[in-house]
Amino acid sequence: MTGVRTGPAPRLEDVQAPVRSDLEHVTRELRRIVDDDSPLIAQVNRHLMVMKGKLFRPTLVLLTNAIEEDPAPRATTLAAVLELMHLATLVHDDAVDHSGLRRGHPTINALFNHQISVIAGDYLYLRALRELARLGDLDALRVLSETSVEMTRGEMLQLAVTVPIEFSEPEYEALIAAKTASLFRAACTLGALCGAQRHRAALSRYGERLGMAFQVADDLLDYTEAQEVMGKPTGLDLRERKMTLPLIAALREMDAAARQRVEALFAEPVPSDADIHAVIGLAAEYGGIDYARRRGEQFAQEAEEALADIPDTPARAALLDAITYVMDRRF
Amino acid sequence: MTGVRTGPAPRLEDVQAPVRSDLEHVTRELRRIVDDDSPLIAQVNRHLMVMKGKLFRPTLVLLTNAIEEDPAPRATTLAAVLELMHLATLVHDDAVDHSGLRRGHPTINALFNHQISVIAGDYLYLRALRELARLGDLDALRVLSETSVEMTRGEMLQLAVTVPIEFSEPEYEALIAAKTASLFRAACTLGALCGAQRHRAALSRYGERLGMAFQVADDLLDYTEAQEVMGKPTGLDLRERKMTLPLIAALREMDAAARQRVEALFAEPVPSDADIHAVIGLAAEYGGIDYARRRGEQFAQEAEEALADIPDTPARAALLDAITYVMDRRF
Repeated sequence: MTGVRTGPAPRLEDVQAPVRSDLEHVTRELRRIVDDDSPLIAQVNRHLMVMKGKLFRPTLVLLTNAIEEDPAPRATTLAAVLELMHLATLVHDDAVDHSGLRRGHPTINALFNHQISVIAGDYLYLRALRELARLGDLDALRVLSETSVEMTRGEMLQLAVTVPIEFSEPEYEALIAAKTASLFRAACTLGALCGAQRHRAALSRYGERLGMAFQVADDLLDYTEAQEVMGKPTGLDLRERKMTLPLIAALREMDAAARQRVEALFAEPVPSDADIHAVIGLAAEYGGIDYARRRGEQFAQEAEEALADIPDTPARAALLDAITYVMDRRF
Repeated sequence: MTGVRTGPAPRLEDVQAPVRSDLEHVTRELRRIVDDDSPLIAQVNRHLMVMKGKLFRPTLVLLTNAIEEDPAPRATTLAAVLELMHLATLVHDDAVDHSGLRRGHPTINALFNHQISVIAGDYLYLRALRELARLGDLDALRVLSETSVEMTRGEMLQLAVTVPIEFSEPEYEALIAAKTASLFRAACTLGALCGAQRHRAALSRYGERLGMAFQVADDLLDYTEAQEVMGKPTGLDLRERKMTLPLIAALREMDAAARQRVEALFAEPVPSDADIHAVIGLAAEYGGIDYARRRGEQFAQEAEEALADIPDTPARAALLDAITYVMDRRF
């Protein structure tokens, strides 16, 4: 899709191949950092270890760290800390949205209760912080603290949207930069910090653009894929009144009648499946889905360009594959 | 009450007198650290600056810091960071409890919404973290990260209580040590860290015992004071099924009939005012209120003893007054 690779799209396991054994170490580090003898915390932790998913962000830490040499031991710990901060935001996202499902698994809200989900998210943040304090790595601490502030600002930006239909493309980009791309950027910055420092700016840029591509692709999936593929129902963003790029772009091209149908959907307390499908149809008809796809490809292209001067190692090849994976992923 | 001082009980302003001008600086630091150009965050911040209360914990940082010399500039920043962490826990406490009032003011839940209260709490934690990262003070970071993990563990301990009537005194002490005393301890440790290091252990001990006394006194107030004095309705802990020392101690002395009345209250989905008053009456009748008062006085006594070898300065006198203030406070 980005011209990076011909032939079949790389699978995640291809992307992760150069750092496979280090990723297992990341999982062990995750367990160590959150470990606690309180039965309730241990129970929550067991569930989080299921929820933790595919460790894509830790993979970025390790790959960017391995650009010139084998991953540093510190990189695995930092990768685990970064993943914990990511998990903390997911747990609080679910607490905020009262979501029952995440990646096909029940959320902490659903399995325990809402109260526990608020405090469990804090626990993850604070264990990550304690680990950073123990490492005594001020550079990493600065990167992660700036990033986590930015992610929270992104959440607040999203909560501050009162008239979704007026949400503009620049506002959308500012939002996904803060909510998603900042953490991808941080992952790659951390990798460079304890590895090839001289490539820090290029790798940070790569991470940031990859994160933008990732979020645009994710938002597109909500318009293009069916429930069984994603582990969450299609049109969920619309149900939650989240305005994303396909509809933002389509709205610019709509006539008054089409626009009114979108406005009507956002005015419904609980939009029906028919309403959702009608608006998804309008987003396609007015070119919003194509526009978002092109915009995603631009971000992917910029991520690729950021790697231009990176030495040609297996880690670099995997970072290129990661771009294609992000653009093509269907689950 | 602790024999520290005869005559009228000291007011908070007496305790704060030696560090009055530094406390104003703490308020400026608080504003600086949370400042943000997002309108929603700015709005939440304005409210938090009202909610911040009397800065008792920052007062402890400054007084312990001023034991031998004037407070260090760094102490005011650390005091502000500590207060922010405290505010973050309050905001998330209110989010967890869906509380509408705190210190007589509407909570973030009530003024904005539940979603914003979860994210606003995160924002406070993460701004505090970012400030610590900027200060580059690893010792302070270690103290505050250990403390915040401990406070969150305390919250989880509380959420894990499934049969309140079986909650024991050792469990109660572990809970208040984690939830309350750990932050008082941290306040005094931070003061010593950038001041009289050689008194660190004594001042930490003082803070920890003062925090225990503070929480026991706070829990007693719920049994002894009327709504207008506290800014929260009497018996609120009972309404929320929180088992505190007066009732824990009384339960040990109760006959089966009395015990059954307490059990009945905890079985009610929404206990009536009459139920609450009946159980408060039982706590008094079976000596629980007297027991809790004596236990609080023991903690206060231990706090005083911890100051035995501290040089006799105005700051030390104010720390002694703080003990009496904590025990006698009625608002």
